[in-house]
Amino acid sequence: MTYSELSNLIFQKQSYLCVGLDTDPRKLPHHLLTEPDPVFAFNKAIIDATAEFTVAYKPNIAFYEAQGPRGWESLKKTLDYIPADCFTIADAKRGDIGNTSDLYARTFFDPAAAGLSFDSVTVAPYMGHDSVLPFLAYENKWVILLALTSNPGSADFQRQQVGDQELFELVMEAAHSWAGADKLMFVVGATQANELSRIRELAPDNFLLVPGVGAQGGSLEEVSRRGLTAAGGLLVNASRSILYASSGLDFADKARVEASSLQKEMAGYLDDIIKN
Amino acid sequence: MTYSELSNLIFQKQSYLCVGLDTDPRKLPHHLLTEPDPVFAFNKAIIDATAEFTVAYKPNIAFYEAQGPRGWESLKKTLDYIPADCFTIADAKRGDIGNTSDLYARTFFDPAAAGLSFDSVTVAPYMGHDSVLPFLAYENKWVILLALTSNPGSADFQRQQVGDQELFELVMEAAHSWAGADKLMFVVGATQANELSRIRELAPDNFLLVPGVGAQGGSLEEVSRRGLTAAGGLLVNASRSILYASSGLDFADKARVEASSLQKEMAGYLDDIIKN
Repeated sequence: MTYSELSNLIFQKQSYLCVGLDTDPRKLPHHLLTEPDPVFAFNKAIIDATAEFTVAYKPNIAFYEAQGPRGWESLKKTLDYIPADCFTIADAKRGDIGNTSDLYARTFFDPAAAGLSFDSVTVAPYMGHDSVLPFLAYENKWVILLALTSNPGSADFQRQQVGDQELFELVMEAAHSWAGADKLMFVVGATQANELSRIRELAPDNFLLVPGVGAQGGSLEEVSRRGLTAAGGLLVNASRSILYASSGLDFADKARVEASSLQKEMAGYLDDIIKN
Repeated sequence: MTYSELSNLIFQKQSYLCVGLDTDPRKLPHHLLTEPDPVFAFNKAIIDATAEFTVAYKPNIAFYEAQGPRGWESLKKTLDYIPADCFTIADAKRGDIGNTSDLYARTFFDPAAAGLSFDSVTVAPYMGHDSVLPFLAYENKWVILLALTSNPGSADFQRQQVGDQELFELVMEAAHSWAGADKLMFVVGATQANELSRIRELAPDNFLLVPGVGAQGGSLEEVSRRGLTAAGGLLVNASRSILYASSGLDFADKARVEASSLQKEMAGYLDDIIKN
């Protein structure tokens, strides 16, 4: 998916909601446990219920990997089921020396490898440019680089002062020399909303993937006011608050209500952007 | 495996060789391609040929993941085949917020999850303490934290000055407060041998996993002179130079010769340690 396709999608659907498919087999509604693939059955119902309000889906790879080979089967079925008008994110936080990152890129981008063809993958920057470049070699595929994450440990290294900037700012600056905004997004946690205005100055055109709204406590309003651009420029992720809105027979209905409510709030902020 | 078990193993086998099972299906000897699981057939032959000279095996997870579900089957068979007197490393470079790292830890440590029970996993530090701690919650399992890697991109962030030290030194210092040398190793590239004396001061007791000898150009002698301790303290990885010593029918014999030659050189350096 291209930059302008993603931007158009956001304004068409009046949404920059990303649904995080962090599907934990231990949290599935009981009535799904007799399905041949309960994880896929759950994801399918969540996608059916939320696609109207959603521009992106983000399976967190750890949840599938922890199921062994059958987890990867569930992941593939899920990816294949996501509608074509939704951006897909492999939240894998990979990164290794060049020849190894090349294999991780093949895993998530080249359907001839593991049967998967995501639009994007999250990448960890610690190993530097040659750990990231192999992911950028695929046409119309995106790297979503960790910049300032939503967890407490983000203070340990990302917020450390390196010269006249913090490490996450150096990461963003360096990454600009690796790829343009048409292939590069950054992860910025919603719990870091105070920093979002500064981050927007550093990355005026890049999309930001913002986890941490909902269960982790970030504010959608603050993130939107500081992060939205004329092209949209945001993908705000919600996982647990949608997936586990109910643990009963009505889980998909409740997920739909949650997604719809977030989309309505987002439509208001997008409206403000168009007016200003 | 405990610290003293690993140390004893090194002096018994007179080796601190780790064989990196970076098995690329595109590089397998042709006669293996008709096997039901060519990757496992290759690994089995490599393990049979090298176990006598080896204290650790390190499958690089990217190589298996890029094969989809059957890659994870090959990985499990390989892990199950590694002899009990060898330390096992899942070279996965994972790391995410706490509840997600917890799932990555289960993937590689808890056989009830994905059928795998590695002794250790490599972890990326960018997201800080709560991304690493879940891996440390398992008894007799180890975290091998990226510190100073062997690739060119290690200069981009790891070598940046943070206060009066470089970022990789801050990572090592912080990690000491998360776990002792009985559960925590560091990755230090052999191409960074100049830094090894300084790193030994920062981590006098921790084992160091040292990739980059061989194909990447690091010197085993330099690494050994600067890195060995009275407990051994090193695992030096070789991958391509052993796995692909020959691409013919004799690949296992040639791998054995390579591993044996590295082990003999290591025995000499261990001997010097005992004498001094």
